[in-house]
Amino acid sequence: MDEQGFVEFLKRRFPFRRGLGIGDDASVVRIGGAFQLVSTDMLVEDVHFRLRDLSLADLAEKALAVNVSDIAAMGGRSLYFYLCLGFPAGLDLGDLRRFFVGLRRAAAKWDVDLAGGDFSRSPKLFIAVTIVGESARPVRRCGARPGDLVGLTGPTGESALGLRQLLAGKTRSPFIRVHRHPQPQCEKGRRLSRYASAMIDVSDGLLLDLTRILRASGAGAEIDYEKLPVSARFRGACRREGLAERDLVLAGGEDYQLLFTIAPILERRLRRAGMGYHVIGRVTGGQRLSVREKGRRLRIPDLGYDHFRGAEKP
Amino acid sequence: MDEQGFVEFLKRRFPFRRGLGIGDDASVVRIGGAFQLVSTDMLVEDVHFRLRDLSLADLAEKALAVNVSDIAAMGGRSLYFYLCLGFPAGLDLGDLRRFFVGLRRAAAKWDVDLAGGDFSRSPKLFIAVTIVGESARPVRRCGARPGDLVGLTGPTGESALGLRQLLAGKTRSPFIRVHRHPQPQCEKGRRLSRYASAMIDVSDGLLLDLTRILRASGAGAEIDYEKLPVSARFRGACRREGLAERDLVLAGGEDYQLLFTIAPILERRLRRAGMGYHVIGRVTGGQRLSVREKGRRLRIPDLGYDHFRGAEKP
Repeated sequence: MDEQGFVEFLKRRFPFRRGLGIGDDASVVRIGGAFQLVSTDMLVEDVHFRLRDLSLADLAEKALAVNVSDIAAMGGRSLYFYLCLGFPAGLDLGDLRRFFVGLRRAAAKWDVDLAGGDFSRSPKLFIAVTIVGESARPVRRCGARPGDLVGLTGPTGESALGLRQLLAGKTRSPFIRVHRHPQPQCEKGRRLSRYASAMIDVSDGLLLDLTRILRASGAGAEIDYEKLPVSARFRGACRREGLAERDLVLAGGEDYQLLFTIAPILERRLRRAGMGYHVIGRVTGGQRLSVREKGRRLRIPDLGYDHFRGAEKP
Repeated sequence: MDEQGFVEFLKRRFPFRRGLGIGDDASVVRIGGAFQLVSTDMLVEDVHFRLRDLSLADLAEKALAVNVSDIAAMGGRSLYFYLCLGFPAGLDLGDLRRFFVGLRRAAAKWDVDLAGGDFSRSPKLFIAVTIVGESARPVRRCGARPGDLVGLTGPTGESALGLRQLLAGKTRSPFIRVHRHPQPQCEKGRRLSRYASAMIDVSDGLLLDLTRILRASGAGAEIDYEKLPVSARFRGACRREGLAERDLVLAGGEDYQLLFTIAPILERRLRRAGMGYHVIGRVTGGQRLSVREKGRRLRIPDLGYDHFRGAEKP
């Protein structure tokens, strides 16, 4: 069973009577005249991170960032969150303070409040955050239509490159900084809620997250590799370090850019509104996903990270 | 720093602008004409449980039960929940199915829906649940007044006895059953929301949880040990197995009975309503907690379990 199969199993077994449940970046429940969005996401030591690679303050920031990103991916505004923290006995009170200093700074940055939580000793550090947000018009994964354009708010692959560099023993680089400090696209997410037909944040790799939109929407897509935002600096680093640029860009993960589909008529209006993004392809009627570069069809790399199949990372 | 100090530190550093945040069994936010309650609670392998002592189905049930109990402790109704599940590679797909079979059965029992979640590989099993409920009149910890009576919905110490038996190698007993299958007091909680001045569920030990009410309320209490519901069977098992009955009853933990305070005039009305509970003492004006048995003041045992001080359990 892969993640998709598991999600389908759960959706069948656990129908949600009050709104939209399992299967999107957040659940959606209509309460008090608006839609309440709730999402939950966790970081586990030695699965999502190694303690030597990130400070405790950075970890707290990252755990909150990935949740804020889930709300942004629904076109929502994050309001407040709950924290379950499993803390190893090997860490001390100073570490705990550093964690909460980072959490407070991150909470201020994204204007969200800590509303409650639970704390426990744990053999390994883990951080599970549940975040509450709201939106007047939540954007789901299932709204992509043939003819829509595929948009992306910024570059992918840079965080994955940073991770490769950390694993290779490097400690500083612009890409390591991107890996350590994910930037959820809050403002763009809220703006896109008025335009996008479907949206997701790129957490597990561009193509894997795109297939989630396509599967939910019953559609296919054609992506033009040349239209993807790949910087000369990124390209150069890949070449120097012998890394497959395309694999990182298409399947890297932890980018937290927003990937969306949009009707052409609305895309023209969005363009006039002056928001930065890239049109990287279009939605097709078939169920296939293809990536072309200079007219030539690329062999698609392993799509991205799946907890049900994947080797542990890092 | 003990747990209380840690909670105070967090309350100062993380003010919650939208309602009541850290410091009670659940947060309280007024939304759409009612109060939304949210609580989060987790179970961690080798801290809260050992895999050999509980089946995966029982673990799923327990993880949900402790959260349903938090909502009951606020006088609320549980509605739906979110699950973060960290799953060791040593467990297989069958184990995962068994977990979700147990979760589904528990969700049906307490009439709550799974609304979302996150799944990850993890070195040790952990289960973090965030639950959403509602109440027209949430009962907090801080409402106890001198002169109020102290009430308890049922016996304490039985789960702790069951745990001791498991650790001693026993596999079956009525108390092990209590330990494996906590029963949140949902209906009594909702009923008590109309009467109680303060309420908490007994998760970490009767006296420790009582001190939480007293500290939040700025009050003291006198408890009569003879008035505590202690069955002859429990007493006999403690005697036979050489366990200190009073320590288990007063500091055992994982009971999930409701501990509440109530004005005497309302207690008479509650009594007429026919709900089962025990008056075990009264709230006093001082800041002290004393326990008496036949007029003699008991030396209070170590109050209960505190993740900031305690040795790991089991």
